[in-house]
Amino acid sequence: MKLRRPVYVVGGAHTNYIGKFHPDFIWKKHPDFGKRQNPTLEDYIVTIINKTLEATGVDPSLIDKGYLGNFAGQLFSNQGHLGAMMPIAHEALGYKPLARVEAACASGGIAALASIDALQGMADVALVIGAEVQTSVSARQGADFLARASHYATERELDEFTFPCLFARRMKAYQETHGVSHADIAPVVAKAYANANKNPNAHMRTVTWIDEAFASGVNPKNPAFLRNEDYRDHLLISDCSQVSDGATGIIIATEEGLAKMGIDKSACTEIVAYGHSTSALGQVKDFTRLDNAEAAINEAYRDSGLSVADMGVGEVHDCFSVTEVLMYEALGLTGYGKGTEAAKDGSTQIDGRLPINTGGGLMAFGHPVGATGVKQIFEVHRQMKGQCGDYQMPTTPGVGLTANMGGDDRTTVVTIQRNT
Amino acid sequence: MKLRRPVYVVGGAHTNYIGKFHPDFIWKKHPDFGKRQNPTLEDYIVTIINKTLEATGVDPSLIDKGYLGNFAGQLFSNQGHLGAMMPIAHEALGYKPLARVEAACASGGIAALASIDALQGMADVALVIGAEVQTSVSARQGADFLARASHYATERELDEFTFPCLFARRMKAYQETHGVSHADIAPVVAKAYANANKNPNAHMRTVTWIDEAFASGVNPKNPAFLRNEDYRDHLLISDCSQVSDGATGIIIATEEGLAKMGIDKSACTEIVAYGHSTSALGQVKDFTRLDNAEAAINEAYRDSGLSVADMGVGEVHDCFSVTEVLMYEALGLTGYGKGTEAAKDGSTQIDGRLPINTGGGLMAFGHPVGATGVKQIFEVHRQMKGQCGDYQMPTTPGVGLTANMGGDDRTTVVTIQRNT
Repeated sequence: MKLRRPVYVVGGAHTNYIGKFHPDFIWKKHPDFGKRQNPTLEDYIVTIINKTLEATGVDPSLIDKGYLGNFAGQLFSNQGHLGAMMPIAHEALGYKPLARVEAACASGGIAALASIDALQGMADVALVIGAEVQTSVSARQGADFLARASHYATERELDEFTFPCLFARRMKAYQETHGVSHADIAPVVAKAYANANKNPNAHMRTVTWIDEAFASGVNPKNPAFLRNEDYRDHLLISDCSQVSDGATGIIIATEEGLAKMGIDKSACTEIVAYGHSTSALGQVKDFTRLDNAEAAINEAYRDSGLSVADMGVGEVHDCFSVTEVLMYEALGLTGYGKGTEAAKDGSTQIDGRLPINTGGGLMAFGHPVGATGVKQIFEVHRQMKGQCGDYQMPTTPGVGLTANMGGDDRTTVVTIQRNT
Repeated sequence: MKLRRPVYVVGGAHTNYIGKFHPDFIWKKHPDFGKRQNPTLEDYIVTIINKTLEATGVDPSLIDKGYLGNFAGQLFSNQGHLGAMMPIAHEALGYKPLARVEAACASGGIAALASIDALQGMADVALVIGAEVQTSVSARQGADFLARASHYATERELDEFTFPCLFARRMKAYQETHGVSHADIAPVVAKAYANANKNPNAHMRTVTWIDEAFASGVNPKNPAFLRNEDYRDHLLISDCSQVSDGATGIIIATEEGLAKMGIDKSACTEIVAYGHSTSALGQVKDFTRLDNAEAAINEAYRDSGLSVADMGVGEVHDCFSVTEVLMYEALGLTGYGKGTEAAKDGSTQIDGRLPINTGGGLMAFGHPVGATGVKQIFEVHRQMKGQCGDYQMPTTPGVGLTANMGGDDRTTVVTIQRNT
């Protein structure tokens, strides 16, 4: 989609992304267990709105529209109607037009697109947040909740861990079609953890034992955990993204909006085009391709007049290690079946040709589902503005892209940003 | 909100709205009980998309954006990610940009607004649907699911039927402040059922025993059913909207979109402005006012340059009888505390000064939560185009409005439509 009115990312904020293995996460082995609780979904929403306003210096009375991306608040937190949770954060948001969108793991991306669309009309400043809490129930119960992003009636039964199994199915198809092993895919995992170890917001920032050797095959700390015997061997713990709690927020605005806020375009990045594609639940055409992502990526390339050769940074959905490999191919970074080469040869490392998921991606930065799509846009912005600290790229990128995926490549949202 | 690009409602479709007391609804006393099931959420989504395409004659390949309003698919149907359910209906929707929005009972209204916003950009034709299934669990379980539209952490405990109790609280405040009784409010209920009895899509179309006398006080078939003793006396069964399954779809388009589809503007209604306001969950300021609805209504009046005196038809949220009375006041149809007069004097009857909820409203047309906001827009369109059959107004309205509310007046969406 081309834009009629240019849209700029002003800035934003992350909470820490936390969960098991994060030092702040309260669980039975934490010294504060029983003394305090992990933050609630409401806490995350309130915190991220105020952090975003503070980080950008934006007067909330100037906000013309707000969208929140969240997948499963009704399940993990007994709470829907989250647009109306937003004014709890700040009195100035009362009577504002605020709403929640839901597209599984692409909820954050959809929140951004709905906000961009609002800026095509009479709105000039939008608040986009994503927030998710997933650690309030057991992993097994959580897996059942998350399965509502698949075609539940036909796919839930694949495995008690439905989504890992859906992607083990892709991994099996990929491995068998292209003759690759876990060792070939392990560099993608190792990159994620190496990047996250430099990122203070990352869920896995202190996890240093997951490296290429660890991720190359089964070991006692890295089991194949599925029950489904057809797919079990094809997915290890290290292939998976994290069950994280967290939130990210950004402010986006038109030129008129920037003028009202007194913000110079040079402090911003521009969203030059987006892609958004949806495919039917339960009807994957080819397990070795992300054809829905390809459609969204190609739409964004077409409408921006740019191609993969122009991209200097990328945030792509790596819900599982094979997803990132398939994303390389969908982007056109490598040919079909050649995705593992881009990981092996360093192309997607922080100092590579096209750095991908510089903060650690879903695998190691973490994956609070509804936040991820917003996080991706903010991470591209931060790399462009030199805000990434220890994981800052050596060369400031001029153009970058995000690819945020819901379910088994059933919804994909792509944005292309340009540095100003 | 004013629109930069004019937006037209082309047409649409309803499924029947069904549930307890509807002759097609399968429950233990239905002759087909055990032989067949009620339609699923997927059935409703697939059906309404195809009915909408058929009713409007729109080629689905021309659709540039689609939004679906749904409140609680993840709970009642174990299914989220409903944007990706839409392409199951029609192959031509594959790779289209489709997504779900959620704002409790205003989910349908938000689906319409997000689509209108998309038409402010480069999109020209949008599909807007709302669908909900709520009859898949017991009434008690359902009440817990629906409580996720309130501030669950603080409001759930009010009563096992949380939402009826929230509005019993408003009824009590209204009755005590203004000295009115159930008998004063009963004409609103009687109007809803009288209108629905003429509406073949209505959930309560065959229920003829609910009239003004019935709704005026407790009787064996019309109990005060809450457990909360503070509020019990203030809400009867007849004050409540229905737990319905159902779906509605519409097509909206820009002038360019109409040209592509070969549809003349004269067949359409125009959406001239909208209002959208949100207030913090759990923080109602005055139980005797819908201040959030007032904010959205006043925004729409301001941005359309119209007032209540211009309105010829209205669809307003009547989740409970008192809500409709409060809506009359929020619209400015009557002064504060005078809403019951508009019901008593016939002003809002089909042949009155400002007919409201001509098809029976949420109380008797039914309230499949996510569909309601879309239904309201389509109903205003249908009255303007003379499509309402036995409940067609005697005078064709030139201007009309919708007011769709989420939760306890925490999200309100208002649209103003003009006949062409």
